Amino acid sequence: MGTTTLEAAPEPKYWHLKTVLSEALDSDFAVGEVLPNERELAARFGVARATLRQALEQLELEGRLQRRRGVGTTVAPPRVGIEVGNPDLAWPGEAGKDGWQPLDCVPVEPSAAVAALLGVGPGEPVHIVRRTRLTQGQAVAAELLYVPAASVPGLAAIEEVSGSTRARAVLRELQRLVLQGKDRSVELGSARADDAKELDRLPGAPVLVVTTRYFSAGAVAAVSVATYRADTCRLTFTESGDVEISAADERRAG
Amino acid sequence: MGTTTLEAAPEPKYWHLKTVLSEALDSDFAVGEVLPNERELAARFGVARATLRQALEQLELEGRLQRRRGVGTTVAPPRVGIEVGNPDLAWPGEAGKDGWQPLDCVPVEPSAAVAALLGVGPGEPVHIVRRTRLTQGQAVAAELLYVPAASVPGLAAIEEVSGSTRARAVLRELQRLVLQGKDRSVELGSARADDAKELDRLPGAPVLVVTTRYFSAGAVAAVSVATYRADTCRLTFTESGDVEISAADERRAG
Repeated sequence: MGTTTLEAAPEPKYWHLKTVLSEALDSDFAVGEVLPNERELAARFGVARATLRQALEQLELEGRLQRRRGVGTTVAPPRVGIEVGNPDLAWPGEAGKDGWQPLDCVPVEPSAAVAALLGVGPGEPVHIVRRTRLTQGQAVAAELLYVPAASVPGLAAIEEVSGSTRARAVLRELQRLVLQGKDRSVELGSARADDAKELDRLPGAPVLVVTTRYFSAGAVAAVSVATYRADTCRLTFTESGDVEISAADERRAG
Repeated sequence: MGTTTLEAAPEPKYWHLKTVLSEALDSDFAVGEVLPNERELAARFGVARATLRQALEQLELEGRLQRRRGVGTTVAPPRVGIEVGNPDLAWPGEAGKDGWQPLDCVPVEPSAAVAALLGVGPGEPVHIVRRTRLTQGQAVAAELLYVPAASVPGLAAIEEVSGSTRARAVLRELQRLVLQGKDRSVELGSARADDAKELDRLPGAPVLVVTTRYFSAGAVAAVSVATYRADTCRLTFTESGDVEISAADERRAG
């Protein structure tokens, strides 16, 4: 977006090529179409292959192109908007309609960074629920949901179950708590090997990491670290908490 | 985050190296310290330079390393949390304390993608306010705020002013409207040449693109396309609109 040039900024060669290529994608290619190989493209646009490769990398970052092993470079469909800040959804998995599928649950020790977010000491047991988010049949995100054992004391009775049954049990127990609020951050990251596998990407592929803290009874009850495919996802947030909204609604109603 | 390996996933060589390097950064290097050159590092860890380079690229994606021309590769400070979804802030620039500085305002035609978001036809005049967001004295984001002339009809009287004075005038007029709500999306992008210059990055550097639509009187009153440095920023969102919050507050108060 925003292709308007507002001032004369020095543009490197590949950047200009990127703009030209982007326009060619709009006019000459269909979604899913395989691009000619690099040699042909470089010849067609009269540029060196190194320049072409840089431009293709930019277009991949912007979600215009997909590079898949054994297929080549194809024109990507528009990114899918994935709702992240759904205000109707309190606890993870509560509505059951947001596309998150519980996979399994394992009791392991969280990393130091996650332990700090959770406010748990070393050695304190934490349930880790793994979930995958499906949109239109495709895995778009992989999540690790960290739930300190102290948040779900009722779970002790069902120690025996495992796999997705156990994951569902943890989610159910979590949903009994009264949610006070949550905060969330989004940052760039690279896919860990097991997330990459789930998301059908290579390890290290750029991802958007969404970290959510769920608060209950004045403490952090759970932390979710969700990894979204950066190539195909546009994360969307709908705000409904603005004070001004009710004023506007009254005005319209009146 | 989440260094826990939950299942045996095949990890490429550079991925393992990345983990080792990441630990070395924690223990052996201080923030801002310049790393040894690639030849030395490859020798120290017993890997090929291509493998090393891939690992360094991953660490750069994750915000652990910064590569600057003329300086080399340095250990990055932790990413700065930048509040994006500030619920106290209705219109852009209203509070004046969120670090956004108006630069200038130019009447140009928006791109087709932005025009579609704004719901304006071709040729319809749109004010474009350029702003930069400063955090701790550093530019962390560059914004193009698109305001259709129809949203700010009162502005016709001050046609003469230009630059940041004009930008401020557009923002002031916008703030007279009653805000009904906004929606927001976050996606990966690459820095346009002029944004890159403002953010002290090379064109094409990975950025987080935050697109916000502001609604008033049942229509889109403005669209903001803000480009945040992906290397140094962690975007934070605080939700305050959950129905559950008031229930929790009552419970605590009672």
